[in-house]
Amino acid sequence: MNNKVKVTFLGGVGEIGKNMTAIEYNDEIVVVDAGMTFPDDELLGVDVVIPDFSYLIANKDKVKAILITHGHEDHIGAIPFLLQHISAPVYGTRLTLALIENKLKEHPKVKLKAVAVKPKNVLKLGSFTVEFIKVTHSIAGSLALSITTPVGTIVHTGDFKIDYEPIDGQMTDLTRFGELGRRGVNLLLCESTNVCRPGYSMSEKTVGRTLEHIFDSHKDNRIIVATFASNIYRLQQILDLAEKYKRKVVFTGRSMQNVSEVALKLGELSFNRENIVDIDKINNMDDKELLILGTGSQGEPMSALTRMAAGEFKGLKIRENDLVIFSASPIPGNEKNVYKVINALYKLGADVIYNELEQVHTSGHACQEELKLMHSLVKPKFFIPVHGEYRHMKVHKELAMSLGMEERNIILPSLGMQVELGSNSIKESGFVTAGQLLVDGYGIGDMDSNVLRERKQLSEEGICVVCVNINNVAGEIINEPFIITRGVVYADEQEAFVQDAKAAIIASLKEQDLRGVEPSVIRSTLRRKISNFIYKRTKRRPMILTIVTLD
Amino acid sequence: MNNKVKVTFLGGVGEIGKNMTAIEYNDEIVVVDAGMTFPDDELLGVDVVIPDFSYLIANKDKVKAILITHGHEDHIGAIPFLLQHISAPVYGTRLTLALIENKLKEHPKVKLKAVAVKPKNVLKLGSFTVEFIKVTHSIAGSLALSITTPVGTIVHTGDFKIDYEPIDGQMTDLTRFGELGRRGVNLLLCESTNVCRPGYSMSEKTVGRTLEHIFDSHKDNRIIVATFASNIYRLQQILDLAEKYKRKVVFTGRSMQNVSEVALKLGELSFNRENIVDIDKINNMDDKELLILGTGSQGEPMSALTRMAAGEFKGLKIRENDLVIFSASPIPGNEKNVYKVINALYKLGADVIYNELEQVHTSGHACQEELKLMHSLVKPKFFIPVHGEYRHMKVHKELAMSLGMEERNIILPSLGMQVELGSNSIKESGFVTAGQLLVDGYGIGDMDSNVLRERKQLSEEGICVVCVNINNVAGEIINEPFIITRGVVYADEQEAFVQDAKAAIIASLKEQDLRGVEPSVIRSTLRRKISNFIYKRTKRRPMILTIVTLD
Repeated sequence: MNNKVKVTFLGGVGEIGKNMTAIEYNDEIVVVDAGMTFPDDELLGVDVVIPDFSYLIANKDKVKAILITHGHEDHIGAIPFLLQHISAPVYGTRLTLALIENKLKEHPKVKLKAVAVKPKNVLKLGSFTVEFIKVTHSIAGSLALSITTPVGTIVHTGDFKIDYEPIDGQMTDLTRFGELGRRGVNLLLCESTNVCRPGYSMSEKTVGRTLEHIFDSHKDNRIIVATFASNIYRLQQILDLAEKYKRKVVFTGRSMQNVSEVALKLGELSFNRENIVDIDKINNMDDKELLILGTGSQGEPMSALTRMAAGEFKGLKIRENDLVIFSASPIPGNEKNVYKVINALYKLGADVIYNELEQVHTSGHACQEELKLMHSLVKPKFFIPVHGEYRHMKVHKELAMSLGMEERNIILPSLGMQVELGSNSIKESGFVTAGQLLVDGYGIGDMDSNVLRERKQLSEEGICVVCVNINNVAGEIINEPFIITRGVVYADEQEAFVQDAKAAIIASLKEQDLRGVEPSVIRSTLRRKISNFIYKRTKRRPMILTIVTLD
Repeated sequence: MNNKVKVTFLGGVGEIGKNMTAIEYNDEIVVVDAGMTFPDDELLGVDVVIPDFSYLIANKDKVKAILITHGHEDHIGAIPFLLQHISAPVYGTRLTLALIENKLKEHPKVKLKAVAVKPKNVLKLGSFTVEFIKVTHSIAGSLALSITTPVGTIVHTGDFKIDYEPIDGQMTDLTRFGELGRRGVNLLLCESTNVCRPGYSMSEKTVGRTLEHIFDSHKDNRIIVATFASNIYRLQQILDLAEKYKRKVVFTGRSMQNVSEVALKLGELSFNRENIVDIDKINNMDDKELLILGTGSQGEPMSALTRMAAGEFKGLKIRENDLVIFSASPIPGNEKNVYKVINALYKLGADVIYNELEQVHTSGHACQEELKLMHSLVKPKFFIPVHGEYRHMKVHKELAMSLGMEERNIILPSLGMQVELGSNSIKESGFVTAGQLLVDGYGIGDMDSNVLRERKQLSEEGICVVCVNINNVAGEIINEPFIITRGVVYADEQEAFVQDAKAAIIASLKEQDLRGVEPSVIRSTLRRKISNFIYKRTKRRPMILTIVTLD
């Protein structure tokens, strides 16, 4: 038997999103998180990206537990796909599990064995002793993990911040981290999202105070707030303000309705249900007694708020006397969409307050000083930064070194890396298969698919289809050639273009002796001629499909 | 004769980019700026966006002058297209004109009548008296304009900041703005880019001090700096550091080479040419005697730095001991690309310093307190915020009101708006044709073109082409149907897909009585059937082209 623990990084390192780590001892594996991510624009038409977990499939009999730190998509989104292959139980807080169950409604064949846990719970899972530790984050029910193995203790922070005024009254359990540190922690896996930001993250309560000030100075306005549906603490503060200022609440947007329903049911969110009204009841209500709470804080094209801004939302028309608050900041890449929605709302006469103007949002991730506090409490022998792009993990490594850690005790992980941990040693031991799987419609494919390259060419240059019908015995063209383009020629040039293209095709065919010639030869000559013809005319190189039928 | 001045907004209001304003009195027009902008991602395959200036074409005999405030693309980029229709002289500083001439090299048929001006120059242009006023901005040779008309003076700030330590020693001419204010300014057109930022913009000299500190603490490293080619002041500071630390300079990237050449020739940039070396000479040079200065600060895919990060740049391989400085901040929308390049550089072993970590960039636009200073000096009767998205102009209006201006004296412009200015009155008088023209390959088209919609569908869903050959007398299918897809089916499913699709097509055709039926009827039935077949199979709705030929 091997007396080392293997830590395998299947996601969330060197990138933001789709977190997944496997911790393995002999024939036992516990998986920490199983997240997804949304695709970059260049993955045209792809819906969701999940980790390539073929390593877990290959070792599926070893997997004893899936431990979920919290209910954000980048930590739970791959569960429906993972559970199609692996039948281990899933551990998390009640809210986390409820959000997973909600997800699984779209995958009715997938079976979930859910085990609810609470902070301070300790579970014996084979050779591992797992303790769940309360942390504050931008979603309720967030946990860090202490995983004690035969070679020592691993602390995984999950996503966290340190908020001295937490909304639920339960602070990140600094004392427990300190106790673990005093007892001895072998390896710290710590998140890195905000490691480039100096100082401390702002308290969630500060956001609440700003919002209260805004509600107080806009007593006569109809108020619309857009925020992340999963930010239960934010929702609670907003609902408290609704109660204080005697406003009825309308939940809009599918995820806002789902999450608020789940959270109310679990008691994670408290609000008098009598004061929740349906969007189609608002027409005879006063502006000052209404609060609309919805998604769309990222300018998502189909969200309620974006449709309101475009004047296309049934049941609510934006107008003067509306105040719209974006209680969120744009995730990198969403800036332009968010600002488009803000501009459109202003044009409709609404007043708009967003992060650039007031403190209406705070991050759920620890900044530099909070990370230093975590390192100083846990005092690990070895450190691996996780949950960040490569630049974040690099800066996190420097932060650990500035606190006195030696460089040789720190590993910068990359996707698929496997690390061997002993009681007094750590080393990279190799790489396993890892990467991205693209979920697209019904299928799951791999990254370098032709499909994406083809979509890219189509998107930038368009397509031209040419059909010719030939009798290669007589060497004659039968019928007129047929040509059709999409995304190539502007409407007013279409007619002249098609006429000239046909003439060019006929001229090209007449140059060749068509008797006995193979369709593939005609096709490739034709493709070249047409491509050059179109390039001269439009400076574009569309995809060209030539179809040659023999009579 | 009318005794009003008309101000027409043809670009740069309610959006960032493609600035263009026309100022008109009877049969005389002066145009201020003629800019372009780069397209949003959703304008797939479009190269450049320029203002729709058909109003100027319709009034081309009136246009007496084109006044250019400075040489950034969003102020000069439309000149090649404008001059194809209008032959008025172009006024600007020597650097601005040199950059325009550089642009026109790609448009050899366009003729430029250039008139070089300097700060404090006063020109009589018909009924207008135009005075050029020194302002500081992120490009040298920037000007504000005072345009005195028969109804009073209009001040147009251009793009500006107030820097008490300007690199060229010439501060924004606050005194002149104050004198104009004392004499009486009728209308202020003031830029709005940074109106959401409180306080003052950082001085360019502060960036210089940060850079000096970095050069000083990296004496043995090879240093690579990426910045905007047009930021002559930044380049000068970097070249001064090269001289101080005895480093030879390599200029990489086409625009960096062009602009530095132009600026050195004009004396806007001073550096000993003997210390400029070619990229292919660097292999036998010491790391510590080298400075590479290039474009790519925005993560542009084809830029020198992006190619270096991908290991695809000839002549320079990134390695340990390289320090890369991004002396720029990402323009909204470019964040992801910039971070990708940073991550890739880190992975190659380089050290990277960027805006999030150190003060290596400052904006060229006035923040709130600077804008207040401008308003307080110019003390205009009327105010129109320009150069900003709608949200910026809205906040700028509020800023002016906070300084005591009455709301009725402020107009929020929108694209195409025409404003009538009298000596004691201002009002919106209507709208002229305005909007975006998309420059794409050889053609200029309008916004709502089908071409873009088609490219979008192609990019997200792919395409499927179906050809069937039918004898509609006998009611028979001739040959096998032909089906081809692009961007729809993954490679390993292709064969089965095509087989099943063919079977579905044949089944669909056999359901119909094909005798005497019109091809258009067969086409639409077939399209519907195939679309449903593909959707069931892939959850996608590709564009479907059906081609029915009759035998």
